[in-house]
Amino acid sequence: MTAKHILTYDSTLRDGEQCEGITLSLEDKLRIVQRLDEFGIDYIEGGFPASNPKDVAFFQQVQQMGLRHAQIAAFGSTCRKGVAAEEDQGLTDLLACGAPVVTIVGKTWDAQVERALRTTLDENLRMIAESVAFLKAAGRRVVFDAEHYFDGFKTNRSYALRCVEAALRAGADSVDLCETNGGCLPFEVEEVVAATVERFPEGNFGIHCHNDSGCAVANTLAAVRAGATEVQGTVNGYGERVGNTDLLTVIANLELKMGLDTVGAHSLEQLTSVSHYIAELCNVSVPAHYPYSGTSAFAHKGGLHASAIARFPEAYEHTKPALVGNSSRMLVSELAGKASLLQKAASLGFDLSAPWIDEQAILDEIKDREARGFSYEVADGSLGLLLMRKLGAYRPSFTLESFRVIVDDREDTGALAKDAMSEATIKIHVGDKRFVATGEGAGPVGALDNALRLAIAESYPQVAQMELTDYKVRLLDESQGTDAITRVTITTSDGHGSWGSVGVSENVIEASWNALVDSIEYGLYRARSRS
Amino acid sequence: MTAKHILTYDSTLRDGEQCEGITLSLEDKLRIVQRLDEFGIDYIEGGFPASNPKDVAFFQQVQQMGLRHAQIAAFGSTCRKGVAAEEDQGLTDLLACGAPVVTIVGKTWDAQVERALRTTLDENLRMIAESVAFLKAAGRRVVFDAEHYFDGFKTNRSYALRCVEAALRAGADSVDLCETNGGCLPFEVEEVVAATVERFPEGNFGIHCHNDSGCAVANTLAAVRAGATEVQGTVNGYGERVGNTDLLTVIANLELKMGLDTVGAHSLEQLTSVSHYIAELCNVSVPAHYPYSGTSAFAHKGGLHASAIARFPEAYEHTKPALVGNSSRMLVSELAGKASLLQKAASLGFDLSAPWIDEQAILDEIKDREARGFSYEVADGSLGLLLMRKLGAYRPSFTLESFRVIVDDREDTGALAKDAMSEATIKIHVGDKRFVATGEGAGPVGALDNALRLAIAESYPQVAQMELTDYKVRLLDESQGTDAITRVTITTSDGHGSWGSVGVSENVIEASWNALVDSIEYGLYRARSRS
Repeated sequence: MTAKHILTYDSTLRDGEQCEGITLSLEDKLRIVQRLDEFGIDYIEGGFPASNPKDVAFFQQVQQMGLRHAQIAAFGSTCRKGVAAEEDQGLTDLLACGAPVVTIVGKTWDAQVERALRTTLDENLRMIAESVAFLKAAGRRVVFDAEHYFDGFKTNRSYALRCVEAALRAGADSVDLCETNGGCLPFEVEEVVAATVERFPEGNFGIHCHNDSGCAVANTLAAVRAGATEVQGTVNGYGERVGNTDLLTVIANLELKMGLDTVGAHSLEQLTSVSHYIAELCNVSVPAHYPYSGTSAFAHKGGLHASAIARFPEAYEHTKPALVGNSSRMLVSELAGKASLLQKAASLGFDLSAPWIDEQAILDEIKDREARGFSYEVADGSLGLLLMRKLGAYRPSFTLESFRVIVDDREDTGALAKDAMSEATIKIHVGDKRFVATGEGAGPVGALDNALRLAIAESYPQVAQMELTDYKVRLLDESQGTDAITRVTITTSDGHGSWGSVGVSENVIEASWNALVDSIEYGLYRARSRS
Repeated sequence: MTAKHILTYDSTLRDGEQCEGITLSLEDKLRIVQRLDEFGIDYIEGGFPASNPKDVAFFQQVQQMGLRHAQIAAFGSTCRKGVAAEEDQGLTDLLACGAPVVTIVGKTWDAQVERALRTTLDENLRMIAESVAFLKAAGRRVVFDAEHYFDGFKTNRSYALRCVEAALRAGADSVDLCETNGGCLPFEVEEVVAATVERFPEGNFGIHCHNDSGCAVANTLAAVRAGATEVQGTVNGYGERVGNTDLLTVIANLELKMGLDTVGAHSLEQLTSVSHYIAELCNVSVPAHYPYSGTSAFAHKGGLHASAIARFPEAYEHTKPALVGNSSRMLVSELAGKASLLQKAASLGFDLSAPWIDEQAILDEIKDREARGFSYEVADGSLGLLLMRKLGAYRPSFTLESFRVIVDDREDTGALAKDAMSEATIKIHVGDKRFVATGEGAGPVGALDNALRLAIAESYPQVAQMELTDYKVRLLDESQGTDAITRVTITTSDGHGSWGSVGVSENVIEASWNALVDSIEYGLYRARSRS
């Protein structure tokens, strides 16, 4: 018997981006979609169409991506009070964005209809029914997002059920029961969902929770036990206030603990790297002590247990870490084992399977550098160079003699003055030749980048095709303030594709320099490989 | 009718200290005991007596503290196999330390007895019974910690129950059911605890969970529903791997959601400060997105919600934040109108309600600056300065004439060299005086920070109390590469609290300078307001 499939619905790009401190560029959003699609998520919510130019562009570009499996959902509201569905601008925008799935939020808590929406209970039912019917008539898959469903059910059960009924009768493909406040406990969620499923056995129900009581994962699992067939959440639980349900932890629990199918066992092995990859794009870290994907999730204290772990691993690990792509060693990487290193290297064009290649030495080097703050998850360029060095296939295109960066500023207000000037002078050697070049820039890294390009332009004209498209800075030990180790990650594009590189130092300029050198070196290697 | 009391048992000093990255001094441990006692925790586990000099000293000194309410527990194991209880050194040490409560861990999973302990099932029962009886005869309150109880129950229910029976018959005051691996889900915990309570209606049962499935809080609440009368956990969930049950979140849920009594409603208002105080002693931060005590736990953002909150707060907050000593916070970037600006300003101590104040002009300025890349969500310091400027209440403590930053590097490999040097020279004016100072640092921002502190130390000695605790960099338009607008966010602490500041520029050094100036200016304003 095959396991029952539970649909997965990711809201990282909509509810997740509500998280204080997370801002995603258009390119970030598209890369997240790509990764979630590969992972096997069923529905990916892209955001509100037409709310800003970035989201307009997102819905246009995502249609060109040729997704393997996932369907894109656009998010909006029911029509406004007193407005017919076909005349409502929001609904029109939802159709215009071209997403095959449309999720519309509507109210189901009587008090909220009357006090927040300030309309009648009947008008709210009309808004739900007409909006769903309008979108269905246009051929969309429609999800009705029942806002505050659990609060509504507790205070006026009959009205909350009538809202669900209105959506289902109008043709909603599924009704997402939304625990908007995040304050419910699992036994309450189980009871409400069970009563709703019993009342509408023909309906499909999803569950959407928030973590304000620290129970979002448990609430979501309780809803599945009660009959929900779709789970909503965000990667790593990103979301406003305390966050949304962590979709990854839910997926791991459904697959490993409840015998249900979501992305499937094979994809599940990607869980840890999906968690870290998307965290990186959000420019935050996965907390070390995070369920399943944290670097400490399967870390064992030394001494006392070590011998016992070998004898009886089930006593110390609630699941096999490899099932979620994590490791019981303290290694922060998707490259934890030889098999995955071989696979990753092959994807970069390096064959490590030859018998004279010492994969263990390569793994040790990666582990050592990760312990010093490097991260290769989005730095394929630096990883490729590391592999070349270990294979003896690396010869530097240029070597640094020295650089100096000067930033001058003069101002008499603390406001946004733009008169700061950065100047970088570098001295490098290409073969027997010595080049000295000075570059200017709005900032010190731009100045360094310009100086380096000038210095090598004669030797390597192909550098003109390379463009630095992303530059990220992360402080690794924030308790050290400005003296913390800094990790700089750069993305560079050459029109054929893009690659990441990483640099680490106590000095942000030096970390940037190291990442810049890797980005250019790897770009030159790519150019050589093509010609 | 008064609410039923659930006993609280804190293991921060024992299981919590197993958390990677947390090390507590003797003084830290005593301060934590003091605070947890004031908070109303019933039992505080101090650690393993006699395992090291720090713990020996702890158990001696804690007896002199004159605790108001809490009882101290010492932690150890049953006697060893083949050793009589009265001859076991560990049990002797537990008595010698003088703690009124003794918690001893023993095995209850048949496979673990045979494979890890390597003895017979009967010998294990003897070890449990004799150890409990020995400690009871010495007049201690005895807690039997049933290790791996849930795994044991699932594989050999009858043997797990016999272990519990042995402890209870020997006089154990309570049996702590330990979900050692952290892999169970709430419905499993509820089932196992209910069956155990039903079998031994005369016993007192505690519950001890780990968070490996992301369900520790829910598992603990499920056990209470099934009849457990004591909850174990650690402050903020500190513990090895993914951590223990967060005792504070459990307490809040029991009191506010399940109508049970723990520390009582009055003490509950201390919850947020207990969370932050103990985090401080552990030298970590409470994550912003943390249930109940996080700074974002009651923060509001998002176009859909913003306007409605004032009209209908229950729709957006699962509980009143004041009940746990937290407060709601409006994120400025989504300030929908004047009402929310007034509320935010009031929380910073500014009254904008006077008729001569033009709130619209302030809102326009905020919107204008946000459009240029500023973000005031986590930058209360910069927002406070902006309000002061608009109110005409701002006078700069110092003005910049100029700064120059130089970063020099010399190297011949692209690897992690650490010889880069940063030097910053600044020229500023404080009133009629001109100061010139040079600072060095591992990076350019550290150098600038040091130079600024040197330059103003004579005029503002209180700057010595301010410490830069977090420094973040974000590129806003990443398609511009290194020329993108850079936003720098800094967090500074003065021992009384912390505040954020923000700076924006195309130049990362200048953005950092602007954020630094705001952080120091707002810190000086805070110091003036206190004196």
